[in-house]
Amino acid sequence: MKKVETGEPSETTRSVPAQRLEAQWVTGFVDGEGCFYIGINPNPTMTAGFQVLPEFTVVQHERDVQLLYALKRFFDCGVVRRNHADRMAYRVRDAQHLRDKVIPFFEKHPLRSKKRMDFLKFRKVLLLMEKGEHLKPDGLDQIRAIASKMNTARERYSPAPPETG
Amino acid sequence: MKKVETGEPSETTRSVPAQRLEAQWVTGFVDGEGCFYIGINPNPTMTAGFQVLPEFTVVQHERDVQLLYALKRFFDCGVVRRNHADRMAYRVRDAQHLRDKVIPFFEKHPLRSKKRMDFLKFRKVLLLMEKGEHLKPDGLDQIRAIASKMNTARERYSPAPPETG
Repeated sequence: MKKVETGEPSETTRSVPAQRLEAQWVTGFVDGEGCFYIGINPNPTMTAGFQVLPEFTVVQHERDVQLLYALKRFFDCGVVRRNHADRMAYRVRDAQHLRDKVIPFFEKHPLRSKKRMDFLKFRKVLLLMEKGEHLKPDGLDQIRAIASKMNTARERYSPAPPETG
Repeated sequence: MKKVETGEPSETTRSVPAQRLEAQWVTGFVDGEGCFYIGINPNPTMTAGFQVLPEFTVVQHERDVQLLYALKRFFDCGVVRRNHADRMAYRVRDAQHLRDKVIPFFEKHPLRSKKRMDFLKFRKVLLLMEKGEHLKPDGLDQIRAIASKMNTARERYSPAPPETG
């Protein structure tokens, strides 16, 4: 039977055996490796001329891609994709998944690093978006102001260009 | 009363409030940010001409130095020092502390990333050192062979020069 080409690592590569993560491990790992990011890209088809793209990401060397698949199973959403070169990324961009799965988890299991400040700003932007504020110039300005104060002193993560997922 | 100058951040900077860490959080954070490193430095005063310096380290931006102090309390050993520029490091170099405190913890709470392979090699070197193998040319060769297979695909950590602590 011909194997369907998915562009993703084979089942063998990704989890032998599949890891079940514990909540505190996830919090610790995301304190170290996670990123809450708000992209704001020009988009003439949007009412306010810009598209707001919130994104929760964990980047790892490809040798640890099985941990990214374990996170995907843990949060039950998102995708695992190549980031650049030998780096892989677990990424959640769907606003509903961010609001229903990712944000409640970190509300229940607070981050211990200063990354928690980024998370709180990220959550605020998601709430503004839920009210449609990102579609109005004033709301967009507010989101831009919040986003500009995030991810300072972060060097590692360069977000990939927008795509579905 | 005159405050004793310790060269470390003030009590206020380092923990408000002091964080109590959970084992799984520590494992997750070390999976992301930790490093098990074996330094082998020329030292004419040693029998085999080299000094073996095992080191467990977690490096963070200085804004999260309170987490490093929390790790120091958690493991009940090691020091927090500036690594370079705006990076701080939590570091355990004492072989007895590594054997009695750090290694048993990660035996009980296994790392989930490939860093576990480094940990197992690190533990092996510590056991060889306990038997005095690092003082013999053959043992030193064995340690050198193990160390050469560690910390591949690691870019972030540059160990500081040897010092007491």
